[in-house]
Amino acid sequence: MIDGVSLTAVPVEGLPEIRKGDRLGELIAAAAAPRLNGDEVVVVSQKAVSKAEGLTRDLDQVVPGQRAIQMAEKLGKDPALVEVILSQTRVVVRAERGVLICETRDGWICANAGVDSSNVPGKRTVTLLPSNADDSARRVRREIKRACGAAPAVIVADSFGRPWRLGQVDVAIGCAGIEPIHSLREAIDRVGGRLEATEIAIADQLAAAADLVREKASGIPAVVISGLDFLILEHDGDGAKALQRRAHEDIFRGSS
Amino acid sequence: MIDGVSLTAVPVEGLPEIRKGDRLGELIAAAAAPRLNGDEVVVVSQKAVSKAEGLTRDLDQVVPGQRAIQMAEKLGKDPALVEVILSQTRVVVRAERGVLICETRDGWICANAGVDSSNVPGKRTVTLLPSNADDSARRVRREIKRACGAAPAVIVADSFGRPWRLGQVDVAIGCAGIEPIHSLREAIDRVGGRLEATEIAIADQLAAAADLVREKASGIPAVVISGLDFLILEHDGDGAKALQRRAHEDIFRGSS
Repeated sequence: MIDGVSLTAVPVEGLPEIRKGDRLGELIAAAAAPRLNGDEVVVVSQKAVSKAEGLTRDLDQVVPGQRAIQMAEKLGKDPALVEVILSQTRVVVRAERGVLICETRDGWICANAGVDSSNVPGKRTVTLLPSNADDSARRVRREIKRACGAAPAVIVADSFGRPWRLGQVDVAIGCAGIEPIHSLREAIDRVGGRLEATEIAIADQLAAAADLVREKASGIPAVVISGLDFLILEHDGDGAKALQRRAHEDIFRGSS
Repeated sequence: MIDGVSLTAVPVEGLPEIRKGDRLGELIAAAAAPRLNGDEVVVVSQKAVSKAEGLTRDLDQVVPGQRAIQMAEKLGKDPALVEVILSQTRVVVRAERGVLICETRDGWICANAGVDSSNVPGKRTVTLLPSNADDSARRVRREIKRACGAAPAVIVADSFGRPWRLGQVDVAIGCAGIEPIHSLREAIDRVGGRLEATEIAIADQLAAAADLVREKASGIPAVVISGLDFLILEHDGDGAKALQRRAHEDIFRGSS
């Protein structure tokens, strides 16, 4: 039964708590190097990337503006938190029933513009999303390569909720060395019909697979996925923004 | 680096083309049995389940009604196909720009109510979703157990598009022997803060992981995921419908 492609996902353990200025790729290479040969996908958590990039805010230092104060009252949220969220937001997609769904300045649509308070030392400290997580993925990839010679693909993953379905799934917000969408548009299926417009969000599926072995509360910031070497590119590729559905092609963007 | 949980996903190869009346669980057990001990998650494709359950329709035998004809004209779709889609639909969530998003009678929100024409022998034949994919998962689980003694968890997976993001990902529409949502609500994170309301859609992430090793066009209907034995239940559990966000709690349900 094991002729085809198979996949293994292993957490990278033994990394220190990530601090501002850390070269995350070097740390990952040091912890995982014996097993890295460049044929892997390394999935790193957004939070580790954001901490290394110093993207934290102390809510006690934030002075909320009028819009944040009004929105916080309507939603039952902390005005300082809403101020930080709005600072990361290009468009508010929904603000109702205690939920604030935003399009970030980087183009991702998610709760609270990705501003997150879990797993950050200091109760009033939050992390922001990387300003360009594709750049972050490319940098981590370069750091890994410089440290150990291997250039695996790198995906930056975050946990997003979804319309219609409960529970969060990890998705890709940045990637390097892999195309985020695998197109089966040209493939001819086995009964001779065309698989029209079947495009697989492979980077999102890799992020989801990695999350299965990464226990949120234990602080594992990276997972190595092996067995899909045919997906790895020498160049960095288009990045995860290729996953963003453009507003004018999206029937679920406007306010209802 | 390999102390923690790790995961392996392997496609089940050598299965015949699935036909109406086939006991899918028996076929899977026969192909995968040497490796099944009950600690695994077997992810089966909706299409294989639907074929085994005889859930196909020949569009040449379908007489479209007035509503289907009007909607088909508006959307540029085949009236017979729209008639079949509407027969599977509880609520039309969106019908615009050539896209028909429906809530199925089983409660899933997806394009075309899950009616699918790829990979089905006969150009005018489509598959329908199982009428209750949790029941399907339970039956496949029972068939596997009867055939080889092991009772792995079973997930029925289908490829769904998403608002805001391009590309499809596989999600769970049925499951047995595993809870679809893994709640970290009670977990305390490593810096002492509470991870509030962190619920992971673990069945969806398992479906996504399985799809990475299942090449759509090659007809692999099942994937065995090992390494997550702590998730496997002796009883069947609540089923994948626990993933359905209720309409009154969903701010992206209504027409915009």
